[in-house]
Amino acid sequence: MRNGYGDVRSPFVASFDYLTFLTDYGLEDGFVAACHGVAAKISPGARIIDVTHLVPPGDVRRGAAVLAQTIPYLPPAVHVAVVDPGVGTARRGVAVQTGESILVGPDNGVLSWAMAALGGGERAVQLTNGELWLHPVSPTFHGRDIFMPAGAHLAAGADIASVGTEIKLTDLVSLPAPTSRVRDGEAEGEVMSVDRFGNVQLSIPAAEASRLGVRFGSPLVVRCGRRQLTVPYLETFAAVAPGEIVAFTDSAGLISLAVNAGDAAQQLGLPPGAHVRLSVAHQP
Amino acid sequence: MRNGYGDVRSPFVASFDYLTFLTDYGLEDGFVAACHGVAAKISPGARIIDVTHLVPPGDVRRGAAVLAQTIPYLPPAVHVAVVDPGVGTARRGVAVQTGESILVGPDNGVLSWAMAALGGGERAVQLTNGELWLHPVSPTFHGRDIFMPAGAHLAAGADIASVGTEIKLTDLVSLPAPTSRVRDGEAEGEVMSVDRFGNVQLSIPAAEASRLGVRFGSPLVVRCGRRQLTVPYLETFAAVAPGEIVAFTDSAGLISLAVNAGDAAQQLGLPPGAHVRLSVAHQP
Amino acid sequence: MRNGYGDVRSPFVASFDYLTFLTDYGLEDGFVAACHGVAAKISPGARIIDVTHLVPPGDVRRGAAVLAQTIPYLPPAVHVAVVDPGVGTARRGVAVQTGESILVGPDNGVLSWAMAALGGGERAVQLTNGELWLHPVSPTFHGRDIFMPAGAHLAAGADIASVGTEIKLTDLVSLPAPTSRVRDGEAEGEVMSVDRFGNVQLSIPAAEASRLGVRFGSPLVVRCGRRQLTVPYLETFAAVAPGEIVAFTDSAGLISLAVNAGDAAQQLGLPPGAHVRLSVAHQP
Repeated sequence: MRNGYGDVRSPFVASFDYLTFLTDYGLEDGFVAACHGVAAKISPGARIIDVTHLVPPGDVRRGAAVLAQTIPYLPPAVHVAVVDPGVGTARRGVAVQTGESILVGPDNGVLSWAMAALGGGERAVQLTNGELWLHPVSPTFHGRDIFMPAGAHLAAGADIASVGTEIKLTDLVSLPAPTSRVRDGEAEGEVMSVDRFGNVQLSIPAAEASRLGVRFGSPLVVRCGRRQLTVPYLETFAAVAPGEIVAFTDSAGLISLAVNAGDAAQQLGLPPGAHVRLSVAHQP
Repeated sequence: MRNGYGDVRSPFVASFDYLTFLTDYGLEDGFVAACHGVAAKISPGARIIDVTHLVPPGDVRRGAAVLAQTIPYLPPAVHVAVVDPGVGTARRGVAVQTGESILVGPDNGVLSWAMAALGGGERAVQLTNGELWLHPVSPTFHGRDIFMPAGAHLAAGADIASVGTEIKLTDLVSLPAPTSRVRDGEAEGEVMSVDRFGNVQLSIPAAEASRLGVRFGSPLVVRCGRRQLTVPYLETFAAVAPGEIVAFTDSAGLISLAVNAGDAAQQLGLPPGAHVRLSVAHQP
Repeated sequence: MRNGYGDVRSPFVASFDYLTFLTDYGLEDGFVAACHGVAAKISPGARIIDVTHLVPPGDVRRGAAVLAQTIPYLPPAVHVAVVDPGVGTARRGVAVQTGESILVGPDNGVLSWAMAALGGGERAVQLTNGELWLHPVSPTFHGRDIFMPAGAHLAAGADIASVGTEIKLTDLVSLPAPTSRVRDGEAEGEVMSVDRFGNVQLSIPAAEASRLGVRFGSPLVVRCGRRQLTVPYLETFAAVAPGEIVAFTDSAGLISLAVNAGDAAQQLGLPPGAHVRLSVAHQP
């Protein structure tokens, strides 16, 4: 039966209403717009949601974290993410089917945490079908010439198999998960990110911290190197007076430190990557 | 008669083609994109116009001013504005019907000047219908979990009554209007904002200043603390030579100071909030 | 015959699916959003691609360069570009038919390189039809009150003749092309731009440089003032070790200098406009 169900050569493939886009391209140049233009020509029906283009240049971990924390709130889409310090070298480009979405980008780990956040990948393809690309391919701008063309074709309804050759999911590059463990009555982690408000997001999930007996209202001891401070753990930073330090569970479910109406990262001197330990304060 | 006119339980409610969005979330993280994603899922038909996301963190007055100055040029829409230093505390969330538009945000005054710019509110509702929200509601990200879901439901055509319980318009928090008065031959005001060009926008409407006899071509005396300078009042900053100071009526109808091809705020040392007095120079 | 072919008073004029927008307005204020709102009211069917709004204030050359380098990747559109230090003065506003697109902006050269990139203009009109504008026209915000209204009417399908009076293409202001010449075994040029990564884009097309015998893998001598350095010319910056300098052909086809995982502009002290000479290193 032609085109009937069961015909694996012609699976039902739907187009996507949305394409999302994350890069470290910045907004000063026309790089992002060129990619939007490429998408518009190939997949005019897809609307683009820009996740961010201000990932610090080449910061793959930061790109991975922003994508993973945002993607649960995005609609099913082709998610193109390009933080690609190895552009033009041997690192592969990939597309990964993950639930109702497809992730597209360099195989350097930038997609890995988002993939996990969506429940894991189901199928991975290396981007090898050069017929879909823009030629000549710029060795320094695969976002425009490879990733967005491939992503836009997928958004327009192309089967994932059409963008390249299948590879094993286990062969995909994964970023090591951020340090986070609970032992000896302490939760250890690192500073995941500092947001625009100066809030310091730790890699310690609130769910983990609760195993230590951390509860809203109880004070926490925060240790970083030789420094130590005791802060209240409350529902929101606005629960303390302006200028005071507070720990809270942020919108991604991670323990974070804030100074109400201030900049905690600056005040505490806690940059991304800094090692931090938390414990419940022993109250007299 | 069912569904007939006059049936107040089923008033005609139309969906909106546009949703606008203003915050202080910045563009480095995925906060804005998460909200876009939430809107896309609830109200896929609405297009989003981002007003700005670079309001200085927690600066409610600045957010209110940008929204009020921009909103006359925006199409009828659900306007979601979130500058919310009190997120997670007792301050209310509200939706306000204003002409053909609906304003949604925290009831801290951020909506108040825009409401006035559109001719005043007609009906206000406190956002209490938790069925529309995203759960668990993050105590620090009501933009994603409360305001955008409520706004997107309204954009999709939900009646304003469906997002919560009616409150009095007079109970809404209003920001005090910026200082601006004319007396003793002087117009007094404050620096409302400094734009990207360094142009200093005063809270003195050109219409008010004209009561002093201020006319294009005549010199103005600008007083700020003990400092005093005389500048020409002209139609545009480009009317003076590069590097020269000029007063003009800006695109919001307010008296502003500029340095042509330069940065007036920096050169004059006039930050937002600075008190300024204007008078007509007595020409010999 | 009414409405028949050959009726020059009613030529077939199509609407555009896209409107693109480039300015130096920045993203902190509501300036860009006001223009989006104006477009939405006049031409609701057109989707807007923001090219960039972070052109340095008043930097016409930079605006022209970004537009010209991006426009080949944009779909047919009305391209509105406003970098306009002379706003409110005698400089004209224009619309220029160029292939399938129309360029709209001040006649100060900001459109000229894009026009060339699309193969040259075919027809130019001075924006004189004030009936299309927003009144009162702010002398400092023609983007909102003149350029975007005219552009949006064109996007909605208005004939280019309807926005004003025809002028000669040769009367349009052109920016002088960036310095670039090959002589005596040297390619001379200037720094066109520095991108977010600190990559230094020179005004020397790779095609020109190849006339010197420049080849991938061979070292280049870069001279700037009295300084001189020898760098490898490779396909991509990622081909050298982190921290090393490299020359490559960038995504616009121009010779560029980068420091892998670093900031070449800062390290080499090469700001936009700096004069640079390239030659093939004589290998022993």
